[in-house]
Amino acid sequence: MINNVNLADKFQLIQRTWDPKVIAQLNDYYIKIARIQGEFVWHSHPETDELFLVFDGEMEMHLRDGKLPLKKGELCVVPAGVEHKPVSSAGCQILMLESAGTLNTGDAGGERTIEEVEWI
Amino acid sequence: MINNVNLADKFQLIQRTWDPKVIAQLNDYYIKIARIQGEFVWHSHPETDELFLVFDGEMEMHLRDGKLPLKKGELCVVPAGVEHKPVSSAGCQILMLESAGTLNTGDAGGERTIEEVEWI
Repeated sequence: MINNVNLADKFQLIQRTWDPKVIAQLNDYYIKIARIQGEFVWHSHPETDELFLVFDGEMEMHLRDGKLPLKKGELCVVPAGVEHKPVSSAGCQILMLESAGTLNTGDAGGERTIEEVEWI
Repeated sequence: MINNVNLADKFQLIQRTWDPKVIAQLNDYYIKIARIQGEFVWHSHPETDELFLVFDGEMEMHLRDGKLPLKKGELCVVPAGVEHKPVSSAGCQILMLESAGTLNTGDAGGERTIEEVEWI
């Protein structure tokens, strides 16, 4: 039998920010969720587009040509290779969609990289 | 500049039920939304998994081995090849994710097939 995945319940399982977890898989794509607060690092994903959907709160997607505000119920798709930096001063819950092997820090790497993303 | 896609605004553009519209693309995948009410047809998609996320209202995913209730904020992934039939007696707003060429009626075909899914 197929599972029902309740997003609010899954967010309850996450305490740390910038620590994405996988909640579902579609073909070779992962649906991930994360709590974010503050600023992430500039990076891009040369190999895949990346979707961000705000589940609760609000954020800004910083791009080299501007800042895209995103609030609850809004999404954007960052094309492959486009530099971006998620920012949320008040904190925010987001859902992401991307190829299964995608690293959170993309081509930037560094100490905030999560090599092995856990399922919850 | 990248677009902000507001889900509630997009649903306001849809009147008909069982008439999915594309709102975003990620690589060769489409993010679609639809209003559904009543029963769809049994079908499967041999070539792709399919994700359903309830944006508002509630539905049941009928499967050959049971019925999976899904309410606002809940999602499921129907694996490729698995027969399913979305049902919502009271009506429901859903978001779907699947390969770009996927037909709504999958292998079943028939009069409810939407050959060309529009962008909104």
